[in-house]
This record gives sequence, C-alpha cells and structure tokens, in this order.
Amino acid sequence: MFSRTAAALILAASLSLPLFSERASADAIPGQFVLVVELEIDPAQLEPFKAAIKENGETAVRVEPGCRSFSAVFEKDNPTRVRLFEIYENADAFKAHLETPHFKKYAETTKDMVKSRKRIDNVPITLNVKGK
Amino acid sequence: MFSRTAAALILAASLSLPLFSERASADAIPGQFVLVVELEIDPAQLEPFKAAIKENGETAVRVEPGCRSFSAVFEKDNPTRVRLFEIYENADAFKAHLETPHFKKYAETTKDMVKSRKRIDNVPITLNVKGK
Repeated sequence: MFSRTAAALILAASLSLPLFSERASADAIPGQFVLVVELEIDPAQLEPFKAAIKENGETAVRVEPGCRSFSAVFEKDNPTRVRLFEIYENADAFKAHLETPHFKKYAETTKDMVKSRKRIDNVPITLNVKGK
Repeated sequence: MFSRTAAALILAASLSLPLFSERASADAIPGQFVLVVELEIDPAQLEPFKAAIKENGETAVRVEPGCRSFSAVFEKDNPTRVRLFEIYENADAFKAHLETPHFKKYAETTKDMVKSRKRIDNVPITLNVKGK
C-alpha cells in the first residue's frame, strides 16, 4: 500500500511536474534577426506613445508566426529615450511585420510623436527566456 | 455515436491544445528591471567573448529565480559592438546576479576583452515572448 506522499511523488513524476525549484529551465528563443530601435519621444506625447507601442508589440508576438519576442523600455534617467528589442525568426519575418495592420496603425499613430529614430540590425549570440 | 473528427476535437479541447494557428499566444515577461549594456569588444578576442557571455546568460536564466531573460547580440555592420538585454524581476534580482559564481567567472574571463562598456537602466513598457 502506498503512502499519500509516495502517491503524490509518482503522480508528479508521471506528469513531469518539477519537484524541486532548481529544476527551472531556460529556453533558447529561436530567432536569427534581432532589431534594436533607439527612439526619442516628444515628452508631451509619451503616454499615448507607450500605449501604441504596447499594442503593436503584444499583437506582433501573438499573431505573427515569425515574431518571437518584442519588448519596449524607457531609460530610468531619461524617460523620453525609448528602446525596442525585437526578435524575429529571420529577416523575412521582419519584412512581414512591416506589412501587418497593427504595425501600420502604430506607424501612423506615432509618426508625430517620434523626434528621432535609429535602427540597428543585430545578429544573436544568445537569446534566453525562463521556461515554464 | 461520435465521428472520429468530433472525438479528436473533444480530445483537443480537453487537453487545451490549440486547434487553429491564430490561437498562438504571447506571454508577458514578469520583469520590472531591464538592463541594456553596450559593449565594444577587442576584435582579436571576439570569439572567446561570445562563448563567455553565452555561458553567463544561459546559466543566469536557468538558475537565478529573478533573471527572466538574458540576450546578447552584435551589430550586423559592426560585429565588435555587442549589446546585452537583461530582464530581472526587480533591482534586487539584478544585485543577486552580480554575486553569482557564473557572473563573477564571466567578469573575470572578459575583463581584458572589453574595450568600453556603457550600462543603461530601463523601465519596461511592454515585454513579450511567444508562448508555447
């Protein structure tokens, strides 16, 4: 006859549940094309800009097969300096992004909010996100 | 009596399997502290630098509870210009990172490979990675 603990261990093992915290994993994000964009935003339009880039980034990762990650941050000491960090499966996936309705809406909405914009194309060395 | 298709649909639904490709999801990465580091690497030591930052980044995401994402890239047109993009749960999680054996090993290994280093602390607007 099994104890309750033994039964729980067997159940956890059979479901591949992590039993110990040190079993945390890292997933490599499968992207070959990484875009960094450095933006200077009009201070008077910072909040609507944030809303627009949030909608664009969330939608891109949810609906585009080739958009693997999309983040936007602002500098702690210079809140109008925004950086985008976008990971695409390859350069074609980024071209596809530029044709999407959500990107076109973002570009149109923010065209008078952005004072300067610098795009830097990058090659990955390592791309990691904590696993589930 | 169920058709084979109906049975498959019920099985998929009960297992929460995505039936349609547009059901792909985006996960918000739970971080409040995002570090960008801009590095210029000695061209003669670029390959060992890449190996060292890869080991540090993969290990950080795997073993540190508060390190949610760690990526390193180099500029396509200037391969000695490296950027790090690191997402931590909060500022304390970043402080903990600096005390880890893998970070200390990386810092010691690369100290003569790095010609310049600029650290920029950032606040997230949106952090997204494609779900499973």
